[in-house]
Amino acid sequence: MSTKDFGVWDGEKTVELPKQPDAGLYFIGRIHTPWKERKDCPKNARESEAICVIEVDPRWADGLKDVETCTHLVLLYWMDRSPRTLVLQVPGRRGVQRGTFALRSPARPNPVAMSVVKLLRVDGNRLSVVGLDCLDGTPLVDIKPYFASTDSVPDAVVGWHRPKD
Amino acid sequence: MSTKDFGVWDGEKTVELPKQPDAGLYFIGRIHTPWKERKDCPKNARESEAICVIEVDPRWADGLKDVETCTHLVLLYWMDRSPRTLVLQVPGRRGVQRGTFALRSPARPNPVAMSVVKLLRVDGNRLSVVGLDCLDGTPLVDIKPYFASTDSVPDAVVGWHRPKD
Repeated sequence: MSTKDFGVWDGEKTVELPKQPDAGLYFIGRIHTPWKERKDCPKNARESEAICVIEVDPRWADGLKDVETCTHLVLLYWMDRSPRTLVLQVPGRRGVQRGTFALRSPARPNPVAMSVVKLLRVDGNRLSVVGLDCLDGTPLVDIKPYFASTDSVPDAVVGWHRPKD
Repeated sequence: MSTKDFGVWDGEKTVELPKQPDAGLYFIGRIHTPWKERKDCPKNARESEAICVIEVDPRWADGLKDVETCTHLVLLYWMDRSPRTLVLQVPGRRGVQRGTFALRSPARPNPVAMSVVKLLRVDGNRLSVVGLDCLDGTPLVDIKPYFASTDSVPDAVVGWHRPKD
């Protein structure tokens, strides 16, 4: 896959990027998944029970202490093949224009994806998890404990996605 | 505040950072909060009902279309005053060493914080939200819609934080 997979379609709008980045990210590991091409990825992480493996670089492996006590984690990762210029998108080419910040599309100014995963097992610097839908080899940016007290909002609504009856 | 606020304490461990970053972030706006110094910030976002204002740079403002239909948002922001070298930390200097990836501490290899906020109002490129605990002027990295179907896990447990009875 290349960024050519993302064309600019009718109803989409791009902006010019700033000349310089404001901050730098270190990739701290890689995500191993069963999906080698974008078309193979599940449309939604809840559609898949596939076990994925998070491999943390040895440099950072000490940071995994106590992670095994968490039932769920927040993962941040870098969607490195996405264009960063789109502010209005037409998801699924279905003719309806949405703002980038109202979408979970990988195409966004900073393509940092966030997924909540269930932790199955920790083996040294490798975590087995369920709940991802990204490409094999995706760079890892962060791992955080998921706190239900602040992160879980069961009655949250995305109005454009689930119109009121 | 400076990074000197974060010393390395007994039980803490640092690593050497990679020579080069792997990817660049653009700051897409700023977060306005009532807290000017770290000591004033609430310890936990749920402790505060303060209304904070997210100001999105005009360049990206078109991306806010449809955001007003969301009751809750995921915000990613840059904790720009945090050291990035800590892999083992002693939170609150209470003598217990934890791994960085088992903590929500701003000190981490990539200091990208994630908060779930309640959206009160959208006025042009300004969003009024509740649920933040960061410093005034914090750089914004991303705004995403919060989907309860994938993001909400009410029964998630962080074992080290809430020991079993």
